[in-house]
Amino acid sequence: MASETLNFPSISRTFLERRLPPEDQTGLDGSPYPFTTVTFATSLDSQLALSPGTQTVLSGPQSKAMTHYLRSRHDAILIGVGTSIADNPGLNCRIQGVGGYGSEGLDGQPRPIILDPQARWDFSENHKIFQLARKGKGRAPYIITVLANPPTEKSIILEKAGGKFITLASPENKSSKLVWTDILKALSSEGLRSVMIEGGASVINSLLVPEYFSVINSVIVTIAPTWLGEGGVVVSPPRRTEGGRAISAARLRHVQWHPFGEDVVLCGDFKE
Amino acid sequence: MASETLNFPSISRTFLERRLPPEDQTGLDGSPYPFTTVTFATSLDSQLALSPGTQTVLSGPQSKAMTHYLRSRHDAILIGVGTSIADNPGLNCRIQGVGGYGSEGLDGQPRPIILDPQARWDFSENHKIFQLARKGKGRAPYIITVLANPPTEKSIILEKAGGKFITLASPENKSSKLVWTDILKALSSEGLRSVMIEGGASVINSLLVPEYFSVINSVIVTIAPTWLGEGGVVVSPPRRTEGGRAISAARLRHVQWHPFGEDVVLCGDFKE
Repeated sequence: MASETLNFPSISRTFLERRLPPEDQTGLDGSPYPFTTVTFATSLDSQLALSPGTQTVLSGPQSKAMTHYLRSRHDAILIGVGTSIADNPGLNCRIQGVGGYGSEGLDGQPRPIILDPQARWDFSENHKIFQLARKGKGRAPYIITVLANPPTEKSIILEKAGGKFITLASPENKSSKLVWTDILKALSSEGLRSVMIEGGASVINSLLVPEYFSVINSVIVTIAPTWLGEGGVVVSPPRRTEGGRAISAARLRHVQWHPFGEDVVLCGDFKE
Repeated sequence: MASETLNFPSISRTFLERRLPPEDQTGLDGSPYPFTTVTFATSLDSQLALSPGTQTVLSGPQSKAMTHYLRSRHDAILIGVGTSIADNPGLNCRIQGVGGYGSEGLDGQPRPIILDPQARWDFSENHKIFQLARKGKGRAPYIITVLANPPTEKSIILEKAGGKFITLASPENKSSKLVWTDILKALSSEGLRSVMIEGGASVINSLLVPEYFSVINSVIVTIAPTWLGEGGVVVSPPRRTEGGRAISAARLRHVQWHPFGEDVVLCGDFKE
């Protein structure tokens, strides 16, 4: 269904407008970080999927069109390597009117970013993302790694399609994950002025912590009226404590809820 | 703060009306089961509390008033023994105009039901629920147990206040929990025509399973725009499978979302 064009009516776009990067992003040039949107769809029990590697249809068709509209409004979309391996995702934008879906070129097609520190993703030219790039229906990915010399055969596939590896300095503490501020700065250096971070759960949970609240511009969560049931892939940030007592891990501010078909869309941020 | 009277404005009552037992419940007389409402407040990560035994303020003042309004519309409110032990709850209704809060008698005060199969709850006359009963601000509880002879000293405290033990037949399979249809039938036999089931998590998770969908009339969930963080008390029903594959555990139908202050209220049911 990768060729299916989606429509997202203008009336639905209104409530999202103040949560998005400006239509003209030149005002964002020179910022140290891109405009960063975190977005995902969960069940009532805060799950993204029934199990790791399962694509679970949670939200309705309107929410799917919304996701693609949001993609059209960002220079880049980012996912973790787990999702790349599990889903073989297209990571393009199918909204009517963007490049490959009603107009020439690649206008409105975001740059896919795969967060893959150890270059684990074992892709070939047959993976969906490269097929779409060849058809002019999407861009080839940038893969963020800490390997100084990523595998040559992967680099060749990437570069032939217009993508590349981006090597970040490995975190000093070997056990620690990549530092989000480093990742976001790297995207800015590539001229990407806005990024939409889509998942999976470990990516999102690592972001929803106080040290990154100031670099997150917008959070957009779609919730479906379904409980997937215990044992799925859960969004729940690390536990926080204050004086030895557990406290709420993250509270959204400037909250708005928008009923949207059977689902609800929650918009907020962490700004003071 | 147990004496504080709450107001829930009529404008907010409208969206709830079709989800509630009728104002005049005589039409429910003779039903095998009471009108059963399941209601609770969670975080975005589907948690009722930061940890077992912690009372966590999740939702705003409007949601609290809503809970008390919902209590005024049910003959009974039911919680599990874990919540009784952890919270020392009042389990009364403080909406302006009900008995003890603006009018004489106990009109509008629901009957508290504690689900306590082994009579574990170690209460005295000083527990909040008995204090309120003595002051005419609430009813004494009925405690549902499987013990043929509950402890005499507890029976005395209960009966002095106007409550009692209700003994149900123990489930045939010793390892199994009480059967909800038996519990609900027992409430009907007591003349209780409607019940609001409030928690905690194990009570709710045991109810949100297909065998009980037909006895649940209404589900009302309040969601606060907060992630409590991993390790809290989670609402997530048991995993369901079909042909060996995981499927969604429970999907609400006839869904409506009502933004409500900073929170959202989700109403639905499982009817065909």
